[in-house]
Amino acid sequence: MNVGILMFEEFETLDVFGPVEILGRLKEDFKIKFYSLSGGEVSNSHGITIFTRKLKEIKNGVDIFIIPGGYGTRTAVENNSLLKAIREISELSKYVLTVCTGAALLAKTGLLDFKNATTNKIAFDWVITNGQNVNWIRKARWVVDEKFYTSSGVSAGMDMTLDFLKDLHGVDIARQVAEQIEYEWTEDSENDIFCK
Amino acid sequence: MNVGILMFEEFETLDVFGPVEILGRLKEDFKIKFYSLSGGEVSNSHGITIFTRKLKEIKNGVDIFIIPGGYGTRTAVENNSLLKAIREISELSKYVLTVCTGAALLAKTGLLDFKNATTNKIAFDWVITNGQNVNWIRKARWVVDEKFYTSSGVSAGMDMTLDFLKDLHGVDIARQVAEQIEYEWTEDSENDIFCK
Repeated sequence: MNVGILMFEEFETLDVFGPVEILGRLKEDFKIKFYSLSGGEVSNSHGITIFTRKLKEIKNGVDIFIIPGGYGTRTAVENNSLLKAIREISELSKYVLTVCTGAALLAKTGLLDFKNATTNKIAFDWVITNGQNVNWIRKARWVVDEKFYTSSGVSAGMDMTLDFLKDLHGVDIARQVAEQIEYEWTEDSENDIFCK
Repeated sequence: MNVGILMFEEFETLDVFGPVEILGRLKEDFKIKFYSLSGGEVSNSHGITIFTRKLKEIKNGVDIFIIPGGYGTRTAVENNSLLKAIREISELSKYVLTVCTGAALLAKTGLLDFKNATTNKIAFDWVITNGQNVNWIRKARWVVDEKFYTSSGVSAGMDMTLDFLKDLHGVDIARQVAEQIEYEWTEDSENDIFCK
């Protein structure tokens, strides 16, 4: 399966690389590529500069489209060319996964309208303004609605990705990956200790 | 504080970006840069290509030198120029943190001799052949011995980095960062459920 990760300036480090670590563990199954609107170098204030392809290179969607969060979403959410590309690719893709404030970008395209979704707790009140018709669920580590998987903040993206892997390949494979990376997977999406 | 991350081909994604996420949260305190022996692009099979500076640019060590693991350590551990650079930088640096099989590289330099250290469970038996005089501790999420922090596999690097942050800035700051990234921090280094 082809995995496309959306990148933009000031992406959140672990929103991207948590899911990448998990899917990357099964490299026979998942081929991961990084994309941005203009292609080329994308950076964040954690000192990371990563090479990306142009989103335009995605012609008919990907199997798995991942939208991370980060401070950069505050700017990205105002970028109509980017939102248009996100909408087109998300419509054509088999699965769309968002981490943290990445949900704001997907919500703004309208594709989450009347669907269940979540996002991180700290930015919750801002994110939901970008999707007034979305059925936002505050207390959830992650939420699945048809092909859309939306997760709460940063590390929750790892729990969600393991759950996604479970849906694709069964719980044993997902647990095996969690074990390999010595990660204590919260398997229950409703077990959200960060929702106060 | 200057943070230098050692990069090499086939580094483990989360070994690098787990600690980067945590220290990067306090960007006023930690300035993160990525280094490799030759500088330039460094890649792994998770599709990541990242830009690095040359290790030579580090003249008098860094405040925090981080050595990740990954399949690439199997090759890196035979690279004498790299080991020499790791030894020099580690001697001059204030703190040295290893994640997963990164401990093999540090152990091979001799700097862990007669010190307590750990590494991940799956590669344990291989790693310890690289440091016969090291006091390897199998059941530990991470181990601290003077300026050396060594962690078990992948995600354990995040627990260790939070503990390191605690040692520098106190437990409240460390817990606050864990909360921000919605990460369930295993605060007790001896609570290692992955050691069977």
